[in-house]
Amino acid sequence: MKNVIQNLNKTFDNKVRLGIMAALTVNAKLSFVDIKNLLELTDGNLASHLKALEKAEYILVAKLFINRKPNTTYKITELGKKEFEAHLKALEELINQQNTVRPSENG
Amino acid sequence: MKNVIQNLNKTFDNKVRLGIMAALTVNAKLSFVDIKNLLELTDGNLASHLKALEKAEYILVAKLFINRKPNTTYKITELGKKEFEAHLKALEELINQQNTVRPSENG
Repeated sequence: MKNVIQNLNKTFDNKVRLGIMAALTVNAKLSFVDIKNLLELTDGNLASHLKALEKAEYILVAKLFINRKPNTTYKITELGKKEFEAHLKALEELINQQNTVRPSENG
Repeated sequence: MKNVIQNLNKTFDNKVRLGIMAALTVNAKLSFVDIKNLLELTDGNLASHLKALEKAEYILVAKLFINRKPNTTYKITELGKKEFEAHLKALEELINQQNTVRPSENG
């Protein structure tokens, strides 16, 4: 049995981060409040995961002012897209491996 | 966009735990060393995750003595099987949602 977890990306080892990347893959950009409502999270929880993904350069933050009100939006980077797709592919391999192999009696 | 992460199980929020559950789904039972080699982990790292999965009653530990030598094996519980399958199904939904929806320009 191949090591099914070696291609999984530790940075995505959290369902909130999976949710953020999934949301930013299917939306060109989203605000903090958009993501918070979409994933039903607290401010603090979301902020810490956004920071980690930003640090890994998987997402970009754009801070604008609209009618003198701060408007912060997030978007996925090319690196983020590439790494997230690879992570999903590795997850798919793990899932497919479960579906094909029946439990074997060993030892 | 439905909240794709609500059905993900926090206990499986770690690739090592995904690997352990995957291995114990396709093998009736495995020893500590089996799992350690399969997933290329350190003793300490593996032990902490096995403990958490045992505490959640997703795996069972059997401690035997073979020729007076301790032999500890692990196997998945029915609860573990059920929860892991639900987790994989939620991951599959997240992945499929990525494959179907193209990035939309919004706002």
